[in-house]
Amino acid sequence: MANNVGSLDRTFAACSHPIRRSILERLTEGEMSVTEATRGFAVSKPAISRHLRVLEEAGTIVRAIDGRTHRLRLPDHSLDDAYSWMSRHRELWERKLDVVETYLRERRSVETREGRA
Amino acid sequence: MANNVGSLDRTFAACSHPIRRSILERLTEGEMSVTEATRGFAVSKPAISRHLRVLEEAGTIVRAIDGRTHRLRLPDHSLDDAYSWMSRHRELWERKLDVVETYLRERRSVETREGRA
Repeated sequence: MANNVGSLDRTFAACSHPIRRSILERLTEGEMSVTEATRGFAVSKPAISRHLRVLEEAGTIVRAIDGRTHRLRLPDHSLDDAYSWMSRHRELWERKLDVVETYLRERRSVETREGRA
Repeated sequence: MANNVGSLDRTFAACSHPIRRSILERLTEGEMSVTEATRGFAVSKPAISRHLRVLEEAGTIVRAIDGRTHRLRLPDHSLDDAYSWMSRHRELWERKLDVVETYLRERRSVETREGRA
């Protein structure tokens, strides 16, 4: 459980920066080199390295080292834990909104009937 | 667009701490006072205030001040932007995995036929 909490923390934190989200987006096209995955960002190489480390430590990307080439890919279940938490949150909240809406509709209906009586 | 990027950053960052996720979870039950929403967390009042500020600034909760009582609620579309981004990411990634799987299945099938010929 504690592990899962930490994992959720890290996954959400990994998604909280536009460069890290861009890298995650690029990797949906498949495995690629670090150079391809991080091309064009207007930040220093150490900054890029830090972003990659945050993504790796969150388990949102996987790095394979083949000699001097580092290749990145998404694991099969990239972001699953965070997506599940959000889905559950939305489900609960939408159910609550439905209950409130039904209540308001029924009350209006009762008021209309009482108004007529 | 810049605004949307900042908004996504803030929503994901808001979700990256267990206390903030707990507050968001509690609020799916409906509007409640700050006391109810933040009861039982083993942190200081200033720390709680900071967590609430992060949630508010991300637009993930709304505070209504009625005299001395502060009430919290989820806005109708709490977390929608982040949920959409995650859904899109999953969709792209699952489509890619499907393409890879279909390719591998077809290749195996060709190899089997060539093996027989």
